[in-house]
Amino acid sequence: MTKTTSDITKRTSIGAQRNPASEEAILTAAGALLSEGGLAAFSIEAVARRAKAGKPTIYRWWPSKAALLLDVYHRQKGETFYADTGNTRVDLIAFLESLLGFWKKNGGEVFRSVIAEAQSDPAALEALRDYAVTRCRASGIILERGVTRGEIRADLDIPLVMELFSSFCWQRLLTGRLDASRAQLAHLVDAVLTGFASKESHAQ
Amino acid sequence: MTKTTSDITKRTSIGAQRNPASEEAILTAAGALLSEGGLAAFSIEAVARRAKAGKPTIYRWWPSKAALLLDVYHRQKGETFYADTGNTRVDLIAFLESLLGFWKKNGGEVFRSVIAEAQSDPAALEALRDYAVTRCRASGIILERGVTRGEIRADLDIPLVMELFSSFCWQRLLTGRLDASRAQLAHLVDAVLTGFASKESHAQ
Repeated sequence: MTKTTSDITKRTSIGAQRNPASEEAILTAAGALLSEGGLAAFSIEAVARRAKAGKPTIYRWWPSKAALLLDVYHRQKGETFYADTGNTRVDLIAFLESLLGFWKKNGGEVFRSVIAEAQSDPAALEALRDYAVTRCRASGIILERGVTRGEIRADLDIPLVMELFSSFCWQRLLTGRLDASRAQLAHLVDAVLTGFASKESHAQ
Repeated sequence: MTKTTSDITKRTSIGAQRNPASEEAILTAAGALLSEGGLAAFSIEAVARRAKAGKPTIYRWWPSKAALLLDVYHRQKGETFYADTGNTRVDLIAFLESLLGFWKKNGGEVFRSVIAEAQSDPAALEALRDYAVTRCRASGIILERGVTRGEIRADLDIPLVMELFSSFCWQRLLTGRLDASRAQLAHLVDAVLTGFASKESHAQ
C-alpha cells in the first residue's frame, strides 16, 4: 500500500497552504454562485466578491478557475460513492450507478464543461488531470477492500484498473448516454470480475 | 451475431444517400484543409469552397461540422487498429497502443476538439455519440475473433465491454496522459482477460 487515507480523501496538489476558514468561505461562495446562476455566473471575480476575498488569495490556492470549479463540484458530489456492503461486485455496481446518477441529476453539466475547457486551456487540463488521477486512487478503495477480504487479486494495479470504470462513466457523460441500465452495469462488472477469457482458455 | 461486416466498416447514420464522387471530393478537400491549416482553417464554408461543392450538399450529407470532421478524422485513422495476430491478448494490447499512439502523433487534437465541442453543441454531441457507438461495435471484432477461437467467453456483450477499452483511451487523451507504457497496457488487458476476482473466489 503506497498511499494513506488522507491521500485518498484529500486532493494532493492544492497549491499553497490554505487557511481553513477562508477556504470554507470561498468554497461556500463558489458553491452558492454555481447553484444559483449556473456555470455562466461562475468566475473567480464573482467568487471573490461574494466571499469577500481577494482574487490573489483565490489564485494562490486554486491556480485556475477549473481547479476551483472541480473542488466545488467534488464537494457537491460528496463521498457517498464508495458504499461498503462487504461485496466487491455490489460495491462496484453501486459506484457506477451513483456516479452516472449524480451526473444525470445535476453534476454532469459542471464536469463536462471542465473537461471541454481542459481541451483548450492548459491550466484547466492540469486541474482535470490532477483530479482524475486522485479520484482513480480514491475509488480504488472498493477494490482494496476486496483484496483484504480475499475477493480480489492482490497483484492488480488498482488505480490503473479502476480507470476502466471511471473512464466508462466519462465516455457515457461525454456522449450523452448516462442512462445505462442496472443490467448493463452488472454485466460490465461481472465481465471484469470473472474475466473475458473463456474457462477453456483459463484452464490451458 | 447481430451485425454484418458492412455495419462494422461503415458508419450507420450518414444522412441522405451520398454521391460517391462528390463525397470523395468533399472528404479530400476537408482532409487537405485540416492538414494544411489545422482546426482553425476548418469550416463548412471553407470545405465547400475548396471542394467546389454547395454548402447545402455538405449539410445534407453531414448534419454538422463535427460530423464531417469525424469522417475526415476517421479516414486519417484508417482501419489499422484491429490487427489479427490470432491472439486476443496481443490484439487488444496492439489496439490500445495504436490508438494512443495515433492520438499522440497527430489525430488527438482533432478528436479532443470534437469532444469539447460536443459538450456545448447538440449537433456535435449527436455526431460524437454516433461515432462512439459505431466505433465500439467495430472494435468488438477483436473480441469476436476471440470468441470464434474459443479464447473469449461467448456470453459477453461485446460492444459494451469494448467500451471499457475505448473509454480508457478517451480519458487518457482528455487528461493529457497518452504515454501509458506497454507494461501498463499489458497489465490492463491481462487484468480484464483473467478477471479481477481472486482464484479462491472463482472457486467458490
